[in-house]
Amino acid sequence: MTRSAAELDHRRSVNVALLGCGVVGSQVVRLLTEQADELAARIGAPLTLVGVAVRRPQRHPDVPADLLTTDAAGLVTRDDVDVVVELVGGIEPVRGLLLTALKNGKSVVSANKALLAEDGAALAAAADESGADLYYEASVAGAIPLLRPIQQSLAGDRIVRVAGIVNGTTNFILSAMASSGANYTEALEEAGRLGYAEADPTADVDGYDAASKAAILASLAFHTRVTADDVHREGIRDVSAADIAAAKALGCTVKLLAICEQTDGQVSARVHPAMIPRSHPLASVSGAYNAVFIEAAAAGQLMFYGQGAGGPQTASAVLGDLVAAARNRVIGGRGPRDSAHADLPVIAMGETRTRYHVALDVTDRAGVLAQVAGVFAEHGVSIATVRQEGRNGSSGEGDVDDGAPGPKDATLVIVTHSAPDAALAATVDALTGLDSVRGVAGVLRVEGLGRPVTELGGGS
Amino acid sequence: MTRSAAELDHRRSVNVALLGCGVVGSQVVRLLTEQADELAARIGAPLTLVGVAVRRPQRHPDVPADLLTTDAAGLVTRDDVDVVVELVGGIEPVRGLLLTALKNGKSVVSANKALLAEDGAALAAAADESGADLYYEASVAGAIPLLRPIQQSLAGDRIVRVAGIVNGTTNFILSAMASSGANYTEALEEAGRLGYAEADPTADVDGYDAASKAAILASLAFHTRVTADDVHREGIRDVSAADIAAAKALGCTVKLLAICEQTDGQVSARVHPAMIPRSHPLASVSGAYNAVFIEAAAAGQLMFYGQGAGGPQTASAVLGDLVAAARNRVIGGRGPRDSAHADLPVIAMGETRTRYHVALDVTDRAGVLAQVAGVFAEHGVSIATVRQEGRNGSSGEGDVDDGAPGPKDATLVIVTHSAPDAALAATVDALTGLDSVRGVAGVLRVEGLGRPVTELGGGS
Repeated sequence: MTRSAAELDHRRSVNVALLGCGVVGSQVVRLLTEQADELAARIGAPLTLVGVAVRRPQRHPDVPADLLTTDAAGLVTRDDVDVVVELVGGIEPVRGLLLTALKNGKSVVSANKALLAEDGAALAAAADESGADLYYEASVAGAIPLLRPIQQSLAGDRIVRVAGIVNGTTNFILSAMASSGANYTEALEEAGRLGYAEADPTADVDGYDAASKAAILASLAFHTRVTADDVHREGIRDVSAADIAAAKALGCTVKLLAICEQTDGQVSARVHPAMIPRSHPLASVSGAYNAVFIEAAAAGQLMFYGQGAGGPQTASAVLGDLVAAARNRVIGGRGPRDSAHADLPVIAMGETRTRYHVALDVTDRAGVLAQVAGVFAEHGVSIATVRQEGRNGSSGEGDVDDGAPGPKDATLVIVTHSAPDAALAATVDALTGLDSVRGVAGVLRVEGLGRPVTELGGGS
Repeated sequence: MTRSAAELDHRRSVNVALLGCGVVGSQVVRLLTEQADELAARIGAPLTLVGVAVRRPQRHPDVPADLLTTDAAGLVTRDDVDVVVELVGGIEPVRGLLLTALKNGKSVVSANKALLAEDGAALAAAADESGADLYYEASVAGAIPLLRPIQQSLAGDRIVRVAGIVNGTTNFILSAMASSGANYTEALEEAGRLGYAEADPTADVDGYDAASKAAILASLAFHTRVTADDVHREGIRDVSAADIAAAKALGCTVKLLAICEQTDGQVSARVHPAMIPRSHPLASVSGAYNAVFIEAAAAGQLMFYGQGAGGPQTASAVLGDLVAAARNRVIGGRGPRDSAHADLPVIAMGETRTRYHVALDVTDRAGVLAQVAGVFAEHGVSIATVRQEGRNGSSGEGDVDDGAPGPKDATLVIVTHSAPDAALAATVDALTGLDSVRGVAGVLRVEGLGRPVTELGGGS
């Protein structure tokens, strides 16, 4: 083939370099092959896979041997590469590779939530400078089209809250605890047996994965820069079977939520387990499914639901981005991005307004409720509902019988109105110092997420 | 101002002409004003409203008088107009205006489902020719980002089914019938009182609105051309309180669905009421909310949920499109579109595979079930479940007692397996000719929509 014919070929196809060929990568290769004709029709030019960088030069069933290379750095700077698809994960060496690719004018499609959450701004700046595209739909909520709707469809609206179930492992565990009454350890073991939890589940159960996604969502939704370090993070290790039962008694269910809010020009982003009303659309999202609830000033309440992980599912999102980047190559355009970012202050968790559910083991004698209520009042926290339960778990009806005669044991279940998180935490600390309080049986945040929570609190 | 300064101004802002200033248009004007700074930051240039075409030159509270004009044709060809936003509705004169605008290189943002469903291909061709953009996110499901996810996020996947609740009026009526036991006429009156139904509700209750949306969804999802005339259409006027009760007894709820499917290179699109399992995510979408369920080969099951109508909600979708069109003006790019369309055959309703729920008033004597089952068998329709109910509405348990002695009255409730719709319709026709069948008490299609429907059929 003469050089000019090769150039013509190159101009006529969009050439793709793939970094990483694991569960998702091999699905991307499969779909590129199986759907070659359809993709070419949608793009206006064929997509050609010109190289696949892998760590070890072993044979790969789905990839022709001559495409495999261990030289990722060489691949991302090759002249004939138009788009780099990155499915390696982690911060280094991927950050350097992608910055190099973008600086060389290659568009980048990535599923790397950790990198985007830590250093998305540097990648976006590099893309802006060279005029290349940077897409990362697959980094949050797998197959669910979410970042494109936030970035483009809602570009004319003001998003005020994004709240989602964005980690399938923890949702599987919490769903299993709710349906079977299992405790956390049992449910985690089941998740591991069924392939929903990794051997080291830390990234999932301690909320690191969800925190990265929260940072990406907050950055896009509020047109500002939020990194994973800005996200308050609590995992699900401490969620007990008693917490799940307490939620059920309140008409709620427990979910690990990533919540991003914008109030008065300030943003907050947090990941923690919370009780949500069973009537909320997010409450019925169970097992390994993901869903994200968005509230915008004009659009109102929206929800996006689907599978948040899995090889083919994530590959679907990657290919959507790849088609977009390739179309832009063909028509000489560029993907939309914000021309300017606000630098909105990220408020600390202590200043974020939340609601608490607190279960207290107390001595059941006259004056206890007055004492407990006094501690809440001292900290400026308003109580929404109080319910008394017998020590054996039977539930009392109506308000606490504060005039009961003997010093028996009882449980006080209190749900607060919203207050700064620091005030709520300080209240719980102070309660443990009361001699009538034998212990705090459970503390969980309560989130209405734009829905009334009138059913909370049982009898009151 | 010198001419060159005017040109500079023009280059520096993206100029918008608005056609129509009703419920949605006035919200668009409001948001353009209130969010001017944010929109300019996102676009990289200010958006300037340069004219508003209205039918009658009356004062409009939200629009400066000097922007109002009754000369829509003049407005859409003005040199300084970059983007035309059309919120008039109907086929003519809008089609001519938008074709003129596109041929003159103006980008078009439209919420006009009827026009897009009838002649979207001509508009797309005009946009292709001049390099202008054509966006119409607001034409389907109001505020819900839906067309952009289908067209872009899922561009690397194969969509096999789109099934949605895309008409808020009918969903309100069916939800009211389900929750209160009201009949259709009562529920329609309530919808009218509350502003959810228009004085002439034909477009909604007879399914015309949903059929337009189905045509748009099928065209985008399957990369082909489907018009409203290709869509089989049945409305909800004939849905009875008994149908709703029958659905409840089967663990189902009745929804007016727009269903688009692709099988073996053929597509089908239909709008009709159907029973769906209460466990399906669409079943809990009530009142005026919309939701669309999408199944794709790689992505699996996805759902999009939100408000399908309303001024601010629809304006949110319009502004998202407007920002996209304006960004493309600023960076000199173009919105993505398919480079080629397949011309997939649209199969007739009779060939589409569906399932039926049939309630028959029969003479309760020996041999009736055998006779009825024989008619199903003759038409090649397989019965999934049969249940017998007493004439007074009390429900029998288990299979039909076909050996009962006396000629009492009873109701046979039959749910079929899937079969060509024509075979199902012919079966129902033939059943009415049996002397043991006193009448057909109800016929409704049953849709599992990718979910098991094992709970159907009650006792069997």
